[in-house]
Amino acid sequence: MSSRRLRVGILGATGMVGQRFIQLLADHPQFEVTAVAASDRSQGKAYGDACSWRLMGEMPSSVRSLQVQAPAPPLDCDLVFSSLPGDIARETEGSFAAAGCPVISNSSAYRMDADVPLLIPEVNHPHLGLLSRQRQQNSSGGFIVTNPNCSAIMLALALAPLHAAFGITTVAVTTLQALSGAGYPGVASLDILDNVLPYIPSEEEKIAAETTKILGHFSSEQIEPAPMVVSAQCHRVNVADGHMGAVRVKLSRQARLSELRDVLASFRSLPQELGLHSAPATPIVVRDEPDRPQPKLDRDAGQGMTVTVGRLMPDSVLDYRFVVLSHNTIRGAAGAAILNAELLIALGHLK
Amino acid sequence: MSSRRLRVGILGATGMVGQRFIQLLADHPQFEVTAVAASDRSQGKAYGDACSWRLMGEMPSSVRSLQVQAPAPPLDCDLVFSSLPGDIARETEGSFAAAGCPVISNSSAYRMDADVPLLIPEVNHPHLGLLSRQRQQNSSGGFIVTNPNCSAIMLALALAPLHAAFGITTVAVTTLQALSGAGYPGVASLDILDNVLPYIPSEEEKIAAETTKILGHFSSEQIEPAPMVVSAQCHRVNVADGHMGAVRVKLSRQARLSELRDVLASFRSLPQELGLHSAPATPIVVRDEPDRPQPKLDRDAGQGMTVTVGRLMPDSVLDYRFVVLSHNTIRGAAGAAILNAELLIALGHLK
Amino acid sequence: MSSRRLRVGILGATGMVGQRFIQLLADHPQFEVTAVAASDRSQGKAYGDACSWRLMGEMPSSVRSLQVQAPAPPLDCDLVFSSLPGDIARETEGSFAAAGCPVISNSSAYRMDADVPLLIPEVNHPHLGLLSRQRQQNSSGGFIVTNPNCSAIMLALALAPLHAAFGITTVAVTTLQALSGAGYPGVASLDILDNVLPYIPSEEEKIAAETTKILGHFSSEQIEPAPMVVSAQCHRVNVADGHMGAVRVKLSRQARLSELRDVLASFRSLPQELGLHSAPATPIVVRDEPDRPQPKLDRDAGQGMTVTVGRLMPDSVLDYRFVVLSHNTIRGAAGAAILNAELLIALGHLK
Amino acid sequence: MSSRRLRVGILGATGMVGQRFIQLLADHPQFEVTAVAASDRSQGKAYGDACSWRLMGEMPSSVRSLQVQAPAPPLDCDLVFSSLPGDIARETEGSFAAAGCPVISNSSAYRMDADVPLLIPEVNHPHLGLLSRQRQQNSSGGFIVTNPNCSAIMLALALAPLHAAFGITTVAVTTLQALSGAGYPGVASLDILDNVLPYIPSEEEKIAAETTKILGHFSSEQIEPAPMVVSAQCHRVNVADGHMGAVRVKLSRQARLSELRDVLASFRSLPQELGLHSAPATPIVVRDEPDRPQPKLDRDAGQGMTVTVGRLMPDSVLDYRFVVLSHNTIRGAAGAAILNAELLIALGHLK
Repeated sequence: MSSRRLRVGILGATGMVGQRFIQLLADHPQFEVTAVAASDRSQGKAYGDACSWRLMGEMPSSVRSLQVQAPAPPLDCDLVFSSLPGDIARETEGSFAAAGCPVISNSSAYRMDADVPLLIPEVNHPHLGLLSRQRQQNSSGGFIVTNPNCSAIMLALALAPLHAAFGITTVAVTTLQALSGAGYPGVASLDILDNVLPYIPSEEEKIAAETTKILGHFSSEQIEPAPMVVSAQCHRVNVADGHMGAVRVKLSRQARLSELRDVLASFRSLPQELGLHSAPATPIVVRDEPDRPQPKLDRDAGQGMTVTVGRLMPDSVLDYRFVVLSHNTIRGAAGAAILNAELLIALGHLK
Repeated sequence: MSSRRLRVGILGATGMVGQRFIQLLADHPQFEVTAVAASDRSQGKAYGDACSWRLMGEMPSSVRSLQVQAPAPPLDCDLVFSSLPGDIARETEGSFAAAGCPVISNSSAYRMDADVPLLIPEVNHPHLGLLSRQRQQNSSGGFIVTNPNCSAIMLALALAPLHAAFGITTVAVTTLQALSGAGYPGVASLDILDNVLPYIPSEEEKIAAETTKILGHFSSEQIEPAPMVVSAQCHRVNVADGHMGAVRVKLSRQARLSELRDVLASFRSLPQELGLHSAPATPIVVRDEPDRPQPKLDRDAGQGMTVTVGRLMPDSVLDYRFVVLSHNTIRGAAGAAILNAELLIALGHLK
Repeated sequence: MSSRRLRVGILGATGMVGQRFIQLLADHPQFEVTAVAASDRSQGKAYGDACSWRLMGEMPSSVRSLQVQAPAPPLDCDLVFSSLPGDIARETEGSFAAAGCPVISNSSAYRMDADVPLLIPEVNHPHLGLLSRQRQQNSSGGFIVTNPNCSAIMLALALAPLHAAFGITTVAVTTLQALSGAGYPGVASLDILDNVLPYIPSEEEKIAAETTKILGHFSSEQIEPAPMVVSAQCHRVNVADGHMGAVRVKLSRQARLSELRDVLASFRSLPQELGLHSAPATPIVVRDEPDRPQPKLDRDAGQGMTVTVGRLMPDSVLDYRFVVLSHNTIRGAAGAAILNAELLIALGHLK
Repeated sequence: MSSRRLRVGILGATGMVGQRFIQLLADHPQFEVTAVAASDRSQGKAYGDACSWRLMGEMPSSVRSLQVQAPAPPLDCDLVFSSLPGDIARETEGSFAAAGCPVISNSSAYRMDADVPLLIPEVNHPHLGLLSRQRQQNSSGGFIVTNPNCSAIMLALALAPLHAAFGITTVAVTTLQALSGAGYPGVASLDILDNVLPYIPSEEEKIAAETTKILGHFSSEQIEPAPMVVSAQCHRVNVADGHMGAVRVKLSRQARLSELRDVLASFRSLPQELGLHSAPATPIVVRDEPDRPQPKLDRDAGQGMTVTVGRLMPDSVLDYRFVVLSHNTIRGAAGAAILNAELLIALGHLK
């Protein structure tokens, strides 16, 4: 691990996830924000003036005077974290990678590319083997690593230990997702007060596709998607932070309820072994109270990096069911990307 | 149909569903509220003083001066509508029936009894054949007819035409239920602001059990439950009125999406043929916009008696999926019971 | 009153207030919507396609096929109702008036112009005397009549009978305003969930200035502002519809509480005498329960045209205090403009 | 200051404020919770079982096994913090004081008693002179110190430096208060969703009476109430934590806006000089953005002990106006009482 702090640029720095990046990196031992970029009218202003800060607590003073730049290489940094909107992410992130800059992306643009890792450090760190394929195409030193969609992360994290232990053939999930997942300004208050929206564009497709890639097997230089069927129904509910998923799963082999509970609660992985800075001590917490998890009470577990599972019980249609919850802009976005970068440092890919 | 109006007593008259009974019966051509009863401290007071009216609009003036009585027979009425809490409903409703008074109940106490119809007029009116079994036990003229749980009603209504046309073998539903379903005061505001509660006591069990009884077949003087598996996961969300269910179904025989849509949208049944006062012209409305149904926009369809179905599409785990929504205290409770009573009049069971 | 219906154009037809215009005019005996215009990307589309309908119930079928036009004269209509945004309203409304088209405006652009009536029919119908001044400048037959800001309307309506009876020298109001007042998309859900915003741009200034004009005296061809001091503090709260104002007033002469109550509750004015279609039977309802008015329970009083006053009591700083509430997009916007137009017909200004 | 930690009992330990006491005392250097009492059905159970914990984060493990006792002396402690409901607080707190146990109370029962300090350490620490009067009546060593109502605290804190510098003759405040102020379960969700309640029982009277006592002068062994008129209008809004007050004030002498701002922003007092554990570095923060303070963004300032003032400007009715906000269960309740106790230790009244 390098003793100096890596210099970081944030693409999409004024958005909701961009603000989370800046908040989570404020006192980070390995990273220092040295550049901020945004694809909007804020270019040229000081970040402190350009950004309408929407998180609890004050904007970190270290970034206030950074000038917002256009999201184009080169920026004064060793790597970039990107939370650009999908429509411009593909070209922009590609140009940074081509210019030799590692891109740790929360955007959807490259997630399903065959040579791009869709990484959850606890779940599929062997997928980083794909980086050698990227290096064959691009010798500049730049590369792209993505983290999954906010709902796919919590789902895959909860499924991973069950899949490893028992095999999963079928997943049916119904989500209740938070407002911050739609960015800012995002959902109009008149649309969600006293209401539920049963539609989030592209979300159901992303969850289905990404989950099988995340849980897939890396062999012969490529990802073999996990041979499971995933169906997702998505809803937006009037909650600020904290996505929830009601999940039913069918297993490849019979297992007792207590076995599932043990496998979930005892799950630890490489980030915990390596003691990565943002890795929670317990990636998954299992709660036995009948009315948990709840967004308000559980989203901040493990500083927002722990996924909470509750209501684990047998199901009459598939084999088991449970409810999973995680903080969608921490474990589901900015925190996910930062943990990815920490793993890349620990494994020597970033320096 | 009798030319005079039947005299009605309301058991549980001060609660949320009791208030809906009074609102919906205010200008009803066939019923007139002549007695109100409640199992609480309000006994002896005028209803206008005892009841904290929580519905839009003023309390109907005709009930203001009725004295709140204890829920015990006899009351000055020809039949009672009951929305008593489960714990006291069994004894109280039984005593009214024994005393010769028809009981049209929204309570859960008798729903699963073998000789009690669990009635949705559009779905299973032949189940009224069970009344002859009740008459064998009880010659007083009293009997009990129940309507299902608020979530089971909307689910069974949406499933009924599909089951009739294609056969349903498997149902997985995840609900997002409104606050009024918990009565008043019900859910504490501190528990639901910026939150979701993934637990409603007994609700998942009720939905599973009631749905198969509702869709069951009446033969040889008894109900044969529908041979389908039903799994329910239930959540409380921050919505005043309007339960929503995200449903996946497996059919007995192959069917095209357009066939399902047609069968749902063209569904009409006995209440529509008879022109019952509370029967909506269209029991099920199918919406094709990607973001419907929504509680705020769709709960009042058909004066709250129409169920709205949207997001109908193929599903990778079961065969099809859709989202269903209905007004939980109208179609799901008071309106359901009143429609039941209207059918009983039309078929000669009430006079 | 003309026997045929006047042909109406709606400027700003796709916005929140524009939709209210269309809803309230759907079955209006005196008006028929024949043109819709909007200053946005919806021009050229059918209204049914261009407008994302956000009100309860379906969009009236009569307007679905109207093509959205640019907001510029001529339109195929006898008058226009305008709810254009402030920045473009001044030029656009002026051009319609110059072209001979009467403009009944809900916009702020012309409200404080010396020769433009700021009209609440129950309060200051003599201000229509200003129309002769407009006719001196503009012989085309076009003119402009405005209704006040949504908060100023409810305030002035409650103050008017008190001012007439006792004289008011001082008004201090603190508002709690609904989301629909900010239009659509308006307030971001992340900004208002679990929150209050203590700032609405320009609102405090508008309330202070408009109230003294509304309550002013028309003489010598001009409006003499009412000689009272008005101070307003404004807040946005998480309510869909229904503005609330906590008011303190100082009177010119001593009066007993019961006198204030009587003057408010018995208030009737010209619209009631003329039986105007949108005029509520009772412009002001006084409620004596300690916890009223409430937005959810009282905003729809008088089809949204009645203002509700409660908590009327002596105050230790000024003389009396009360809380006032009204529906901000009906009495406070679209309904206000329509009532203005109905009065103009009754008085022969529109035909 | 004693080197050992004082042993503390919590009266009303299972309520919202009781839980805040336990949370805030969990790692307190001067206090250790050794007894919990509640006036409800939870007596005899372990606190961990009896208390439905509603705060973010887990219940401190140190209190889980404490048995809930009846709120009657003696308890195993050196002092008690009380948040008992008003109706039983008077007798219970009195009995503890009579039995020799200091009572640091958040209840309203004794606040207006002539010989009981109504203490805000930054504002009126000389009022502790009243303790000698209590000792004359009660030689047991017990005494009672109260903190004000949650809204009165934030109001008095903001007024105190202005009153000291310029004199205040008149205060008109309109509050927008949070749900947690009503305790748990408190406000029903159906009452507050899409709504505002313009009434909080007794609140307007408490604010008026307590403010003049708090800001009063201690001389000749008694409190001379501040010679100012205070009028309060109170509302409940759909916010979890954080009371807001829209305030207008009239000063005894003329002052410039900048002088008011400076006096508020530079305010420091005895708790800051003494470095009391719970004392915020800055009791009052003045914000200059037009849209602050906001509950969500400002309630946690200074760990919930800092009051935020914004929108400070001249007012046309009184002299100046501003909006004040503070965390109602920390600075407005449990934190207030703990700071009181810390001051009592520092001044030698507790040991």
